[in-house]
Amino acid sequence: MSAGSGAARTSTNPNQQATGATFVERSRSYVDAKLEQILPPEVTSPQTLHKAMRYSLFAGGKRLRPALALAASEAVGGNFDDAAPVACAVEMIHTYSLIHDDLPAMDDDDLRRGRPTCHKVYGDAMAILAGDALLLHAFRVLLGHTPAAIGPRLLTILVDATWAMVRGQVYDTLGGFEASMPPADRVRQTHELKTGALIRASVVMGGLCAQPEPDSPDDAAVLARLDRAGACVGLAFQIVDDLLDVTQTTESAGKRTGKDAQAGKLTYPGVLGLEASREQARRLLDQAQAEISDLGAQAEGLRSVFALLHERTR
Amino acid sequence: MSAGSGAARTSTNPNQQATGATFVERSRSYVDAKLEQILPPEVTSPQTLHKAMRYSLFAGGKRLRPALALAASEAVGGNFDDAAPVACAVEMIHTYSLIHDDLPAMDDDDLRRGRPTCHKVYGDAMAILAGDALLLHAFRVLLGHTPAAIGPRLLTILVDATWAMVRGQVYDTLGGFEASMPPADRVRQTHELKTGALIRASVVMGGLCAQPEPDSPDDAAVLARLDRAGACVGLAFQIVDDLLDVTQTTESAGKRTGKDAQAGKLTYPGVLGLEASREQARRLLDQAQAEISDLGAQAEGLRSVFALLHERTR
Repeated sequence: MSAGSGAARTSTNPNQQATGATFVERSRSYVDAKLEQILPPEVTSPQTLHKAMRYSLFAGGKRLRPALALAASEAVGGNFDDAAPVACAVEMIHTYSLIHDDLPAMDDDDLRRGRPTCHKVYGDAMAILAGDALLLHAFRVLLGHTPAAIGPRLLTILVDATWAMVRGQVYDTLGGFEASMPPADRVRQTHELKTGALIRASVVMGGLCAQPEPDSPDDAAVLARLDRAGACVGLAFQIVDDLLDVTQTTESAGKRTGKDAQAGKLTYPGVLGLEASREQARRLLDQAQAEISDLGAQAEGLRSVFALLHERTR
Repeated sequence: MSAGSGAARTSTNPNQQATGATFVERSRSYVDAKLEQILPPEVTSPQTLHKAMRYSLFAGGKRLRPALALAASEAVGGNFDDAAPVACAVEMIHTYSLIHDDLPAMDDDDLRRGRPTCHKVYGDAMAILAGDALLLHAFRVLLGHTPAAIGPRLLTILVDATWAMVRGQVYDTLGGFEASMPPADRVRQTHELKTGALIRASVVMGGLCAQPEPDSPDDAAVLARLDRAGACVGLAFQIVDDLLDVTQTTESAGKRTGKDAQAGKLTYPGVLGLEASREQARRLLDQAQAEISDLGAQAEGLRSVFALLHERTR
């Protein structure tokens, strides 16, 4: 994807993208170690269930949602440890959604991150149950590892985001839009629900973990900014995903590409065209950067992840 | 099922059973009305998702778990309203588990409560998503409708019980026991996880809702009694279910019967024989009654539901 006219903007600063790659790498190592601790060991009975959960959770994911949660924590003065439970929880929710979405009854995908999907290895029944278990374990982690003062609030955000994902998956897979809704609104609504909500929640929850007084006017204002930035980034992420589905080969993507068009799904390039979709993604990422522009040097990590998203190639 | 030598015991007192039937009927009307309020209306978009959720949730279930939660609330001095969110949440979790268990990838059942199963009407994809949505909505209801002082504790109990169900479903459908575990232990472990945990949680959570100081020694002791009673009733319930699967016709059960044996599943009658299974169920229900024997007149509702279970015919 060409940086085009956006090359001079904040969101496509090459230095920031390099920093973003470094940040994501650092946060990935951190989160992988935390997930390893927080997940029941593979020898837990029934072993196949725990193997299936780990197979999908440790499949080489980018850990983008955890990176956003950890960076958001730093952006408001916290550290990685403050947001560790949230970082793990959002990745488990994301993995649950991938496992269920890949099922033959849903998107019927055999390949994910270059490996056979969970149900191809463990069967459909186990894939359904491993997905359910990861969903439940995410809530368990938040319940067991976050401060009492913010635990219920974090849980509410995560439950609502997961519920949004389910609705988004319905629109994406089975339709059900209001008849009067134009295609551009349909695709935006689907993307905001299916992908945007969890990314948005990752940013907000990460920030919330590091806020000593989330109900104070100052902290609430910062959270509102993170929320708006997260919403922009969440939608931009799925637009970029749509673009990659059109432009990338299966080999470089590590999953089947061109499938959206084959499945007759609503996509940004399909509805708006390639250029307008790129422009939309850039605009959203610029808006996200603007929302966090006054957070100071501690927000550099978050800025760099936003910038990286702009040029994401896998 | 013959009452046999247990006819003179507390758990098979015919008057108490009649009271139990009345109690369950009264609590069912109450819970149905609450569920109607608490669930998004059928016109919520995407409509088919909400229709599928309601189709399965309002399929004429016995509402046993809500009845236990409401009765447990009364048993410790509370009322129906105290336990309403819990009563709704456990029924949603139960319904989620039925929808997923009935899927072709799992137990592959076409009939539930005398009607086509969710996936037969709405398709496999929607059934997976409607199940996920009910699971999430249960947590949402607890988060939004229970006092802050006990909300996280209720959530933890419900998440743990649901996680137990998933493990139980793995053992039941796919196996995975420790190789050294004898059949009697396997079937008990499966039943305690798959069915017992949520019934046990229903009783404890119902009691917890009505306890002003759950951490006081007195209240904690009562909760521990409810917990043990719930564990006995939960296991007894599934043993009775196994017995009915052997002895009932499909017509009177409203679902396919004899299927456990066909599927080669571990059942109490299969492992212990019919008479020993009946005896075991009676013993557990007597034990449950003993646990709550000193709770006074306010526990009559709970006693009557326990008694009813003994003679449950559908």
